[in-house]
Amino acid sequence: MTTLGITDGNVLHPDMSVSEADVLIDQSTGEIIDVDREIGMSGDEQLDATDSLVIPGLINAHTHLAMTLLRGYADDKPLETWLREDIWPIESELTPEDVRVGTQLGMAEMIRSGTTGFTDMYFYVPEIAAAVEAAGMRARLGHGVVTVGKADAAVEADIEEGLRVARDVADSDRISTAVMPHSLTTVSESSLSEMAARARDIGVPIHTHVNETKDEVEPIVEEQGVRPVEYARSCGLFHSEDYIAHGVHLNTSEIDILAETGAGVVHCPASNMKLASGMAPVQAMLDAGVTVGLGTDGVAANNDLDMFGEMRDAAMVGKIAADDASAVAAPDVVRMATQGSADCVGFESGQIEPGAPADLAVLDLDRPHLTPAHDLVSHLAYAATGADVRHTVCDGRVLMRERELLTIDAATVRAEAATRAADLVARAE
Amino acid sequence: MTTLGITDGNVLHPDMSVSEADVLIDQSTGEIIDVDREIGMSGDEQLDATDSLVIPGLINAHTHLAMTLLRGYADDKPLETWLREDIWPIESELTPEDVRVGTQLGMAEMIRSGTTGFTDMYFYVPEIAAAVEAAGMRARLGHGVVTVGKADAAVEADIEEGLRVARDVADSDRISTAVMPHSLTTVSESSLSEMAARARDIGVPIHTHVNETKDEVEPIVEEQGVRPVEYARSCGLFHSEDYIAHGVHLNTSEIDILAETGAGVVHCPASNMKLASGMAPVQAMLDAGVTVGLGTDGVAANNDLDMFGEMRDAAMVGKIAADDASAVAAPDVVRMATQGSADCVGFESGQIEPGAPADLAVLDLDRPHLTPAHDLVSHLAYAATGADVRHTVCDGRVLMRERELLTIDAATVRAEAATRAADLVARAE
Repeated sequence: MTTLGITDGNVLHPDMSVSEADVLIDQSTGEIIDVDREIGMSGDEQLDATDSLVIPGLINAHTHLAMTLLRGYADDKPLETWLREDIWPIESELTPEDVRVGTQLGMAEMIRSGTTGFTDMYFYVPEIAAAVEAAGMRARLGHGVVTVGKADAAVEADIEEGLRVARDVADSDRISTAVMPHSLTTVSESSLSEMAARARDIGVPIHTHVNETKDEVEPIVEEQGVRPVEYARSCGLFHSEDYIAHGVHLNTSEIDILAETGAGVVHCPASNMKLASGMAPVQAMLDAGVTVGLGTDGVAANNDLDMFGEMRDAAMVGKIAADDASAVAAPDVVRMATQGSADCVGFESGQIEPGAPADLAVLDLDRPHLTPAHDLVSHLAYAATGADVRHTVCDGRVLMRERELLTIDAATVRAEAATRAADLVARAE
Repeated sequence: MTTLGITDGNVLHPDMSVSEADVLIDQSTGEIIDVDREIGMSGDEQLDATDSLVIPGLINAHTHLAMTLLRGYADDKPLETWLREDIWPIESELTPEDVRVGTQLGMAEMIRSGTTGFTDMYFYVPEIAAAVEAAGMRARLGHGVVTVGKADAAVEADIEEGLRVARDVADSDRISTAVMPHSLTTVSESSLSEMAARARDIGVPIHTHVNETKDEVEPIVEEQGVRPVEYARSCGLFHSEDYIAHGVHLNTSEIDILAETGAGVVHCPASNMKLASGMAPVQAMLDAGVTVGLGTDGVAANNDLDMFGEMRDAAMVGKIAADDASAVAAPDVVRMATQGSADCVGFESGQIEPGAPADLAVLDLDRPHLTPAHDLVSHLAYAATGADVRHTVCDGRVLMRERELLTIDAATVRAEAATRAADLVARAE
C-alpha cells in the first residue's frame, strides 16, 4: 500500500463542520483511509496543510470544456444570437486537436482552482477522454446530440455517435459517460425518446439542458400542451441517475417532478446571469428536496471555470431570486459544489470521510482576504477564489502541489491554446 | 527626478484599447510621464510587465474598511436584522486600535488585488488616515454620522466630529475628506441640511447612502411626499462633487436628477445581492449619463474587497436587472471601476496617460484562466481576479512588487487582526 498524508491542516467534514485533522489516503485504491487529529502518519508522500483547509474536490457538474478556446471571443449577447452568430459558426471549425487542447487548458484551470471532477458535453469525445485520462481528473463525458434542422442521415449519425461514446469511451474508473441529447428544443421528440430508451439499455444516465431560457419553455407548452419537464418525462427522462443543466424557468409542478424522481439539477448561475437567461428558483428547489449541483457551463458564457466564483454567484443571485437574504446560504452553496454535484453526476466523491474517493483540494488560509477566521464555510462561499488552492488531489494522486501542476504541462498547453485560438478565429472569419 | 519604469507589458488605454507599451513615471511628482512602445527607458526603479497587462489602479469608491474584522461573522441575513442584531452591537465594541488594524488588513487585501484608491466611511478616522498615509494608498475619508434615535447632545457631537474630520484630517495629497451623513433615513432632515451647508463652507463633497433598500424609500415618500433623491436635493445635496452609495431603488425622475446635477452613484452589486437589497438600474443610469462608479461596500456584506469580483458582479447582475445580455458590458464595468469611480470620488487617477497620477496595477496574463487573449477587456471584467495582480503602484510608489507587499507587514497585520477579531467577538457575546 502506497499512502499519501495531508498533514497539519483543518478539514471540512460532510456536516459542514471544520476541525483540525490529518487525512490519510491509500493511493493504490484512491480512497481516504482515515481523517483524524491523531493519525501520526508517515505517508509515503506528504502534502503540507499548515494554516490551510482541506475540502472535497469541487465538482463542475456541467461544462463544455473545450470552449476555453473561445474565452472572451463573444460577450454581452443574448443566448440565441450568441449561439447562432458567434458560437456555432466558430465551433464548426474546431478540429479534434483543438478540442484536445481546449480540454487540457480547461483542466489546467480547474485543477488550479481545486476542481477534481466534471461533466463535459461536447464532441470528439475520444480525444477528450484521452486528455482526461492523462490529466488524472474524474469526469462523466458525453457527445452532445442536436437533431433539429438536420437531415435524417445526419440525425441518425449524431445519435449513433452519442450512443457509441456512451457505450465505449469509459475505459477507466475515473471516466464514465452519459447519453447527452443537447436540449428539449434542439432534439426532436422521437430522437429524445429513442436516446432515452437506448441509454437505459447501456445503463448510463441522461444529461441535457432543460428550461435554460423562456424561449425553451413556450414552444414546448404550445406544441405539447404540457410543461417541458412533464414532456421530457413522457419521453423517458428523469430516472434518478439523470441530471439536467440550468432549470432556470421551472414552475412548481416541474420542481415537484424533479424532486419525486430524484433527477438532479445543475445550477449554472454565472452563465444564467451573463446570458440574461434568468434566475433559477434555487431556494425553492432546495426546499422541495431537489438534488442541486453547480456548474460553470462553457467558458464562453462565464468566462472562467472557477467553482469558487460559482458558489459565490449561486449564493448572491439565489438571494435576489428569492428576495430573501437568508436564502441559498453559505453551507448550501458549499454543499451544492461538492455533495450536490456528486449526487447529480453520480460520483462517490464530494465528501471527506474514510472510504470516500480521495478527491480533494487544500486551500491556503494565510491570506488577508481569508482573515479573520470567524467562519470558514462563509469564506469558501463568499471570499475564497480558486487562486487560494495550494494542492489538488484526485483518486489519491497529487495533480497539483504548491500550485505547480504535475499532470499537465501548463506552459505548453497555454502556448498551444493561444496559437490554436488565433488560427480558429482566422478560419472562422 | 527619480523615475519608475514599467517595461515590456501591454497597457489598457483610456479608450479601452490595449497595446504593447512601456510606462514611465516621475516618482517625485507621482505622475505618469510617458506611455509608449519606444520609450527605451532606464528608470531608477523597474517593474517587469512581460506577458502582463498594465491597468489603472482600481478604485473602491464605497467601503467601510475596518469591517474586515467582521468578515464571515454574520452572513445570510437581511440588511435591517443584520445591522441591528449583529453588526451594530459588535461595531460598538470596536476600539481605535481595532479600526487601525482592520483598515490595515483591508488595505493589504486591496493592494494585493490591484486597488489603489478608495472611499471609507467609518469612525476613528484619524487612526484610519494615519494607516492610509503609511500604506501609501489614495483615499477620501469621512466620519459616518447617524442622528436618528440619538439625544440632542450626541447628535451635536457626532455632527461636529464629522465636520472636524472633513476639515482637519486631510494632511497629505493622497488623503482627502468628505462630509458623510450615513443615509437619508438615519440622519434627520435638519441635520442633513446643516451638514450639507457646512460641507460647502469647508469645500468638501458629501457622500451618503441613498435608496439602498425599499425600506429607505417608502418612509421618505410617505413623510415628505417626494422621492428620496428629490428630498435630499431640497436639503442641499447633489452638487457635482457629491456622490451616493447604492442607488438601488431609483426611479426615472431620480436618475434624471442625478444625471443633471453630475452627482455620482457608487454601485455596490455584491452587497446589494448578498443583502437581497435589490438590483440597481445600472444600464438605465449609464444611458441617462449618470456617473457610475463601483464599490465593495463593507466586507461583512460582500465578503471581500476584490474589485475584479465587483466588476464581474456588476456586469452579471446588470444584465439580469435589464433583462438584456448586452447591458452593462465588459468595457462599461472596467470604466466604472476606474474612470467612473475616480469621477465619483474626485480623484485624478483612473486612466493611464501622461500627466495622470501614477496609480496602476500590473496583471499577470500567464494564467490558464486568462488564455487565449481574444479580448483583454473581457478578461478584466469576467475572468481575472485580484490574485492575478503582480505589482501595484500608487502615487508613483511601488506598494506591491511580485505579490510582495512593501508598505504593510502582512503577516503581522494578519496575526493582529485574527487576535483582535476573536477578542471582539468575546467582548460582544
